[in-house]
Amino acid sequence: MSDIFREVDNCVTAPQGFRAGVTACGIKSDSTIKDLGILASDVPCVAAGTFTTSTTRAAPVIVCQERLSSGRAQAVIVNSGNANCATGDPGLLNAYRMTEFTAQRLGIENELVLCSSTGIIGRQLPIEKIQAGVPAIELGADQGNAFSEAIMTTDTRPKRIALEFQIEGRTVRLGGVTKGAGMILPNMATMLCYLTTDAAIEHQWLETELHAAVADSFNMTAVDGDMSTNDTCILFANGLAGTTPLDARHPEAGTFREALRRVTQYLAREMARDGEGATKLMTVHVRGARDKADAVKAARAITVSPLWQCALAGGDPNWGRIVAALGASGCELDPDTYDIYIGDVQVVKQGMAAHYKQDAARAAMAGSDVTIAVDLHLGEGKATAWGCDLTHGYIDENTLYTR
Amino acid sequence: MSDIFREVDNCVTAPQGFRAGVTACGIKSDSTIKDLGILASDVPCVAAGTFTTSTTRAAPVIVCQERLSSGRAQAVIVNSGNANCATGDPGLLNAYRMTEFTAQRLGIENELVLCSSTGIIGRQLPIEKIQAGVPAIELGADQGNAFSEAIMTTDTRPKRIALEFQIEGRTVRLGGVTKGAGMILPNMATMLCYLTTDAAIEHQWLETELHAAVADSFNMTAVDGDMSTNDTCILFANGLAGTTPLDARHPEAGTFREALRRVTQYLAREMARDGEGATKLMTVHVRGARDKADAVKAARAITVSPLWQCALAGGDPNWGRIVAALGASGCELDPDTYDIYIGDVQVVKQGMAAHYKQDAARAAMAGSDVTIAVDLHLGEGKATAWGCDLTHGYIDENTLYTR
Repeated sequence: MSDIFREVDNCVTAPQGFRAGVTACGIKSDSTIKDLGILASDVPCVAAGTFTTSTTRAAPVIVCQERLSSGRAQAVIVNSGNANCATGDPGLLNAYRMTEFTAQRLGIENELVLCSSTGIIGRQLPIEKIQAGVPAIELGADQGNAFSEAIMTTDTRPKRIALEFQIEGRTVRLGGVTKGAGMILPNMATMLCYLTTDAAIEHQWLETELHAAVADSFNMTAVDGDMSTNDTCILFANGLAGTTPLDARHPEAGTFREALRRVTQYLAREMARDGEGATKLMTVHVRGARDKADAVKAARAITVSPLWQCALAGGDPNWGRIVAALGASGCELDPDTYDIYIGDVQVVKQGMAAHYKQDAARAAMAGSDVTIAVDLHLGEGKATAWGCDLTHGYIDENTLYTR
Repeated sequence: MSDIFREVDNCVTAPQGFRAGVTACGIKSDSTIKDLGILASDVPCVAAGTFTTSTTRAAPVIVCQERLSSGRAQAVIVNSGNANCATGDPGLLNAYRMTEFTAQRLGIENELVLCSSTGIIGRQLPIEKIQAGVPAIELGADQGNAFSEAIMTTDTRPKRIALEFQIEGRTVRLGGVTKGAGMILPNMATMLCYLTTDAAIEHQWLETELHAAVADSFNMTAVDGDMSTNDTCILFANGLAGTTPLDARHPEAGTFREALRRVTQYLAREMARDGEGATKLMTVHVRGARDKADAVKAARAITVSPLWQCALAGGDPNWGRIVAALGASGCELDPDTYDIYIGDVQVVKQGMAAHYKQDAARAAMAGSDVTIAVDLHLGEGKATAWGCDLTHGYIDENTLYTR
């Protein structure tokens, strides 16, 4: 992190006026596990979200999309253990009821409450457990970390961060939490991400910047067009830092943009690193593509190739699988110009095996962080994507999930 | 098989005038394994092919595409153990040389010889081993089965079939072999398929029918847009059965079409069943889609969902993963109308959990053949796709492939 951004504790409750709280309400079979959480601002926020594009989107996604059309929100309630998806009208009613319980608990307008669910698809929410659980939730400004843990499903660790920086000479903070886990392959991951800031932000600009940041972070960890039924990323800005509202013309807009990029990319990377069964993070840089869209296609194709993910798990520099992934990616490619690097080792030069030492290539794949770089030598397009390896752990995690 | 089609032995050498032969030339590290084969007709054939659409297609694919533009071919030479891909101009030269050795061996025109390679990407072919191997190949009309074995890579068993039927009162045969294996997930499979017939066939009709048959068979085992660098399917028709050339107006064109569909779908299904690490074949039927393209999207999305593939491995009727795959597939879907069946058990009715016995759903997933049916209730579009489960075996197969 550069010197103008300082990391601070408490993630989503680090910015002024945000509080969180959690409880174990019994949705998960182990009744000691925290499975219900609330994140709230003391005052209404300007808010925006990005969501799954699935045609089988879950009930809570429908509620969030409807309510965020106002550009305002104040709180979100999240449960894990049940996705409230493929649950029809009863499921939609339950999603609305979750927000009502929360609005009552906080004494705020129901329309300002959002909701999320993550877990097994196709079962009705045990709404009475949520109803009983909400009053038990005590909110505190030191509970951001507890909130980051309550939203986990098969995550092995929480993913959270907060940055502090200055705008107009005032201290501003931006915090974030995310859950991921079923992230090794893109089709089915459920990602939930909540971002909070005490900066004041103009709504349209907030929405634009959130979409741009998500495009270069979460959508590059293989979670975009193929999103799950529940994927959600929401940014709350409550303005309590007392700055004038940020918009495209604000001279310090770039500072907030940079903070947002750092936070989202950090969370995206950590989500990939904590993919189900993952032992290695891969970072794929593509440059020299005809345009950015092509670079995105190429970078993502490599991160989601199961054969390359297996090679990564074994530390095997079998770069032919990168060639195959590139060829099938749909990006423009000249078979005689592309170069591939594993770490610092150039393994492909102008579309053919480069002269390199096999030991050096193996060494570049030995650690827990492996970097692949591809130069297509066709233009100025570039992109970075993150992924992980494919191991027995992924299979074990997913073979008997509902039993 | 209906009574008008009779299964016969010798697969690609079952039709009159086709011979094959194999040898172990030492491309594979175990020098006792047959890794080089030739399939040839006694006379020039009308021929057509379908190939990978990868931009990093292998050298032999380039050679086949170029030569098949004439609509004629007589033989193909195939090696396993090396894909001759990402090998630049030297690789292309080696591919041409393979055909020259074969033309000399058979005493036929070089332009009528095709070639295929499958195996590791990025290494130059040991062309001198191939040069030494070709003269050792003895061709025989009883060597179709040996040929089907020589083209295997990680396949656990050969995939082969031949059918006999009547056209114009004459006996006609159609044979086929294929190799698959890295087929569990679609991105990187290398599929090679050779089909032979002694029917006489008009070239344009042959090409049309081959493309249509491949679309409903191999391309539905998750090998189409995402094909590997080497995917190849070639049909040779030598006309020795003495029928008048088949075309769209021939009264018995439908008989050949049906034989071609049966052979290609049988081979496609067996390829899925023999996917790397596979223990179960899944057959996915989608009906009621807005149109066929939508049905194809939906069916394929289910077969390639790694989470559903893991559930299949565990015999876990976690149909929420089918819902998620459908939602992300891009097919038109009404969340309140779709039904899902596992075997005979309806698990989803109108987008929500149906009333069913969990034991019955588990029983429907217990065998080695599992059928999934989806009815979208939106139109007349239907499609069938084949896939397999995802197991430790896949990971083990692919973690240390090049070592």
